[in-house]
Amino acid sequence: MLAVRINAERLQVSLRRLAEVGATPGGGVTRLALSDEDKAGRDLVREWMAGAGLAVKVDDLGNMTGQRSGTEGGPPVLLGSHCDSVVRGGKYDGALGVMGALEVVRTLNDRGIQTRRPVAVVNWTNEEGVRFEPAMQCSGAVAGRFTREEVYGRTDRQGMRFEDELRRIGYLGSEAERPLPAAAYLELHIEQGPVLEAEGVPVGVVAGIVGITWLEVVMEGQADHAGPSPMHLRRDALAAAARVISGVERLAREQDESAVATVGRLALEPNVINTIPGKVTFSVDFRHPDRAVLETQVARLERLVAEVSRETGAAGVVRRFWTSEPTPFDPSVVAAVAGACDELGLPHRSLWSGAGHDAKYVAEACPAGMIFVRSRGGLSHCEAEESGAEDVAAGANVLLGAALRLAAGA
Amino acid sequence: MLAVRINAERLQVSLRRLAEVGATPGGGVTRLALSDEDKAGRDLVREWMAGAGLAVKVDDLGNMTGQRSGTEGGPPVLLGSHCDSVVRGGKYDGALGVMGALEVVRTLNDRGIQTRRPVAVVNWTNEEGVRFEPAMQCSGAVAGRFTREEVYGRTDRQGMRFEDELRRIGYLGSEAERPLPAAAYLELHIEQGPVLEAEGVPVGVVAGIVGITWLEVVMEGQADHAGPSPMHLRRDALAAAARVISGVERLAREQDESAVATVGRLALEPNVINTIPGKVTFSVDFRHPDRAVLETQVARLERLVAEVSRETGAAGVVRRFWTSEPTPFDPSVVAAVAGACDELGLPHRSLWSGAGHDAKYVAEACPAGMIFVRSRGGLSHCEAEESGAEDVAAGANVLLGAALRLAAGA
Repeated sequence: MLAVRINAERLQVSLRRLAEVGATPGGGVTRLALSDEDKAGRDLVREWMAGAGLAVKVDDLGNMTGQRSGTEGGPPVLLGSHCDSVVRGGKYDGALGVMGALEVVRTLNDRGIQTRRPVAVVNWTNEEGVRFEPAMQCSGAVAGRFTREEVYGRTDRQGMRFEDELRRIGYLGSEAERPLPAAAYLELHIEQGPVLEAEGVPVGVVAGIVGITWLEVVMEGQADHAGPSPMHLRRDALAAAARVISGVERLAREQDESAVATVGRLALEPNVINTIPGKVTFSVDFRHPDRAVLETQVARLERLVAEVSRETGAAGVVRRFWTSEPTPFDPSVVAAVAGACDELGLPHRSLWSGAGHDAKYVAEACPAGMIFVRSRGGLSHCEAEESGAEDVAAGANVLLGAALRLAAGA
Repeated sequence: MLAVRINAERLQVSLRRLAEVGATPGGGVTRLALSDEDKAGRDLVREWMAGAGLAVKVDDLGNMTGQRSGTEGGPPVLLGSHCDSVVRGGKYDGALGVMGALEVVRTLNDRGIQTRRPVAVVNWTNEEGVRFEPAMQCSGAVAGRFTREEVYGRTDRQGMRFEDELRRIGYLGSEAERPLPAAAYLELHIEQGPVLEAEGVPVGVVAGIVGITWLEVVMEGQADHAGPSPMHLRRDALAAAARVISGVERLAREQDESAVATVGRLALEPNVINTIPGKVTFSVDFRHPDRAVLETQVARLERLVAEVSRETGAAGVVRRFWTSEPTPFDPSVVAAVAGACDELGLPHRSLWSGAGHDAKYVAEACPAGMIFVRSRGGLSHCEAEESGAEDVAAGANVLLGAALRLAAGA
């Protein structure tokens, strides 16, 4: 059977048109949540949803949904992502998922395809969490992770409240209009990583979102003059920390190819050229699809720090302060995505998302899954973010095929 | 022959009295160069010099000298150090050398000892370089390293000029009154390190001041999300830097016991918990008595950085930006110090100073040497800085004995 295909040129036009809103001189976009640019982007999305014949609704958190009826009622197959961006972000992160979903609906319209279940397009509010922290709070609230009051009370750096800004841009709707429940949720997104490019594959079938745990390690030695202290009488906190940092990298490499570990933040005291560092504080970020592996990595880190403390005399303390559980996606949704790829004859591979997405929270409320599109150079959250037009079309075709399977249509 | 001994109690009284000037609540002192506290300390020193019958002179840089005549004229054997301190510094750093020299003269007076050469006490201006950078500039100027104009033009953080502050406190004298030439120079100082304590020895015979070279290393990788980048596709600048930092420590340990190496300053970008570091900049401080060894260490560091760059893909650049040559002390002065120790029956050991002192510059103008006194816990430049009264007396007795040898008296 020849699979139905989206209109690749129309999708590019939509992506380009949306990218004009908040365009930056370097070729990216700045559309911070609830800003004037976000409002302008939303206005376009609403216009396009209405133009595609969708019934548009806006909920109390600003999440926008446009629904296309099915031959039966009930909860829709929900497709979408977000239109807000980071500062000087790219044209694809988030936008691709919303424009891709819209293109799916337009294609269904073109072909006069009736689905059994309704199909809906969603634009989640404030996925990035750049202006109002934390990230993904509006999909999280709909999934029951946060209360409306928690979201409303968030303020940006100028002290502006989320609720006031949402009202100001005209996107404060009602709780009755929330996008969930849904029969299933699908999110098309750029990979934001280098794996698909390295393997020459245009599309990824996302198996889930990895678990993350964050720790802080403090190594405390003895600050001293760099001159008069011979090596064997030192307790150099940075020399000790360097051994732990090398060990953290080794822990991930020796685990398996899904394991990553990063020391991203580090501070030393007193941080003076001719003084032996007395204290070094650094972060450790472990990620893995399997919660048990995360626990093992934490235990190994603790043993490593104890061992380095013993050998160097710089006393180490490990404090674990945040964990996000792994979120495996629903097997039926993952199968629908893989089936659509196969039907299209697209090379694909299964991979886990190393970063969070709205799909993470939505997966707590309904069967969910994601499709990744190859990122050039693995880059994202920057103006150089890019995915080739063919890959973009391939991803949107997979979204269409998987949506048709889940909506039991065609 | 029974060596002449200083009056240990009188020396302690002087040290305690001077430590009242600029005393800090934590038991230390703050006597920044050319401050009101420095002036008060100088006034005491001048009073004590005059009280010991010395002819006091002040030069154009504020260096104070009090001279005791010899049976012959000619340049004196010069003994001293500095009375300025760091912020919340200790009671011994610098002060011990000036009070010890004063105690030597008082002892000569008590015993009516006539030396052949004159013996003089010097209090160098601004050894620490905390308020007016760099350190040791006033002994350096007298030795010909800096011009008077360079010194005068230095400003502190409030924009106050050295010359104006020197005049304000009343210690702007004339160039004709400079402490040099001298027949020899001896500086009694706390060790500021842990070696004498670790070996149970009260006094060190200083062989010279080590050479120092400072380098900056930049490792440049690729900043990226901590999540979506698998380990084998990363170019993590901090993981690369950690290997270099461990290597720097190894270079010193594998060289010989006189070699030290320190990474004291480090900055990473972007320094965010969930971002792979893209760039790490850090300092390397190598010290060794032998210039050739310093050169070898620098070459080894360059090879190490090139090797780590090749293996990690994070490109490293090494920039060497400052070198201070090793300063071996004059054999005749070192022999006088060792001879005085032996005469006193004091256990002692030879060691190199890992830090700079006024003796470094003075050694360029006349035969010079130093005596170290054991530091408790190796601590200095802090309020907890301490040397036991017996060790202080031992050091001052060595200063007396060595001065007598060099002045050919007794």
